[in-house]
Amino acid sequence: MTDQMQRITLASRPDGAPTPNNFKMESGAVPTPGDGEVLVRVHYMSLDPYMRGRMDDAKSYAAPVPIGGTMEGGAVGEVIASNSDAFKPGDFAFGMFGWATHGVQPAKMLRKVDPSHGPITASLGVLGMPGFTGYHGLTEIGRPKSGETLVVAAATGPVGSMVGQVAKSIGLRTVGIAGGADKCKMAVETFGFDACIDHRAHDDAKSLREALKAECPKGIDIYFENVGGKVLEAVMPMMNPHGRIPICGMIAWYNAGGLGDGANAPLTAPKLWRNILVNFLSVQGFIISNHWDKFPAFLSEIGPKVASGEIKVVEDVAEGLEKAPEAFIGLLQGKNMGKQIVKVV
Amino acid sequence: MTDQMQRITLASRPDGAPTPNNFKMESGAVPTPGDGEVLVRVHYMSLDPYMRGRMDDAKSYAAPVPIGGTMEGGAVGEVIASNSDAFKPGDFAFGMFGWATHGVQPAKMLRKVDPSHGPITASLGVLGMPGFTGYHGLTEIGRPKSGETLVVAAATGPVGSMVGQVAKSIGLRTVGIAGGADKCKMAVETFGFDACIDHRAHDDAKSLREALKAECPKGIDIYFENVGGKVLEAVMPMMNPHGRIPICGMIAWYNAGGLGDGANAPLTAPKLWRNILVNFLSVQGFIISNHWDKFPAFLSEIGPKVASGEIKVVEDVAEGLEKAPEAFIGLLQGKNMGKQIVKVV
Repeated sequence: MTDQMQRITLASRPDGAPTPNNFKMESGAVPTPGDGEVLVRVHYMSLDPYMRGRMDDAKSYAAPVPIGGTMEGGAVGEVIASNSDAFKPGDFAFGMFGWATHGVQPAKMLRKVDPSHGPITASLGVLGMPGFTGYHGLTEIGRPKSGETLVVAAATGPVGSMVGQVAKSIGLRTVGIAGGADKCKMAVETFGFDACIDHRAHDDAKSLREALKAECPKGIDIYFENVGGKVLEAVMPMMNPHGRIPICGMIAWYNAGGLGDGANAPLTAPKLWRNILVNFLSVQGFIISNHWDKFPAFLSEIGPKVASGEIKVVEDVAEGLEKAPEAFIGLLQGKNMGKQIVKVV
Repeated sequence: MTDQMQRITLASRPDGAPTPNNFKMESGAVPTPGDGEVLVRVHYMSLDPYMRGRMDDAKSYAAPVPIGGTMEGGAVGEVIASNSDAFKPGDFAFGMFGWATHGVQPAKMLRKVDPSHGPITASLGVLGMPGFTGYHGLTEIGRPKSGETLVVAAATGPVGSMVGQVAKSIGLRTVGIAGGADKCKMAVETFGFDACIDHRAHDDAKSLREALKAECPKGIDIYFENVGGKVLEAVMPMMNPHGRIPICGMIAWYNAGGLGDGANAPLTAPKLWRNILVNFLSVQGFIISNHWDKFPAFLSEIGPKVASGEIKVVEDVAEGLEKAPEAFIGLLQGKNMGKQIVKVV
């Protein structure tokens, strides 16, 4: 009898916020690796906001997941069969195995993970795509300078917490935004933000802006954009001349049905455009997968700081592949505390 | 009897498009230059879209003109009295004399203009602020590369025509947008654009986009933004990955009453923001007055090309200071053909 694996597929495209019915658990035979390929038994998989984009069929920087296709995602696990000299059974590897218990990938698409260097889950967060996204966007696009003020939302997430910690180490005033008092406490006490504002305590952008003004007396020089929505609207008029805005995401708008409901938002396109003009802002979108050439340098710098505890890590672990849809829906609602992962085995 | 001068003041702030009632012609004594100052008899003054912004009291990069204050603007004329060693009567100088027949400025705020180098009106357009705006935004922010495609609106204006001509000389495909068949003909035949699209022939952004697609088969790499509105909406989905958007203005929205009517525009802030993200665009606002240190280099490069006729110049001259309001209102409606100036003496 063939070994069985489980995977979660996209059953239907969501209309707004995803529901459990958009996902389907399926079983099948564990695949056999071909020439140069490696079979991995997944231990942990990552859940990230970008996956919401893959569920729509709108044009984006990546193709959508087809209906019936396995949900995409990064994961880390143990090699159980290898047709490549680069990996042997017992090795650990990170790869895009999707929401599944097993996966086959060409060896060249995998990154070896050494369990002796720390928890393998770091490859999904602080030392993986999200952490690198925060580091690269801040340092390369944000161009931080000591004494400046930085604002980042989702401050306790794996991107925002990296942005805040690296910016603080450079000498910036760091102001986080997060949902709820517990997250704000974590942002300040664990991740060292100078201040953190609970966006749930502010019904509209204007109220949120007043709170930001109190914490950013010299305005905002860098707004690291990962949420859009109310936070963007609050921040834009506070940007200092020559401010920088790296954009890696806009989670507040991911469930907006093609972003159409923005048509009635108080922040209009002309206002947004005018803010860029009158304060000479630099706004740049990026996706970290275009910058893997700089990943080794990132690992060399940040890896030791994670090992030493200088860079803090908080993970939120859901137990079992079957919990992935619920955990993902929760992630989009901000229910997770720290990097959301799923323990698969 | 003291010599008399005329000036045009801001009588009231416009509600939407300016009308002649927003302006008032006033007379008074010609001012006397103080220590280090120079008195100039204005020959030609410039009319530029940015002046619309100065009529509102919204926060911008420059203070608004106060009610009763002289309308701001650059002008060129002859020195008739000088308390500075840097200028003597008979010299020609460019300065911010406003909408007036005479003006006093500190010598250090003036730029000497040599009439033997060509028409002094060039200092208002092709070799002045607008030409330098186009040159700087294109070369420093647009980072043009041979073989790429550039789109610029107001293609026969002093900014757009500079952008198009410099881009063409670097080897880009240049596609202009202008209002009316006459301007499109001028863009192609005089300024050398590869193609020019009449935006008046397209009721909405979608129709305009189809026309752009026909002329930009490889997409758009640089969109030089000086208009906003329908053109921006048409262009954004056509931007190629890693495209660049220098923003120097958004004339389509200047009469929009604080940009509020954008709230119902089809181009929403979320859509605009998403376009920047998914194509990794670089968007940067700028005002040329932050970059005067590079003006001599611009003059050295472009001055000889204007003199040789390699860079073409078209001017639209209104006769008499009293015609300035009408000419300015026409400028905002796109009625001018080429750089709009006013002959004052």
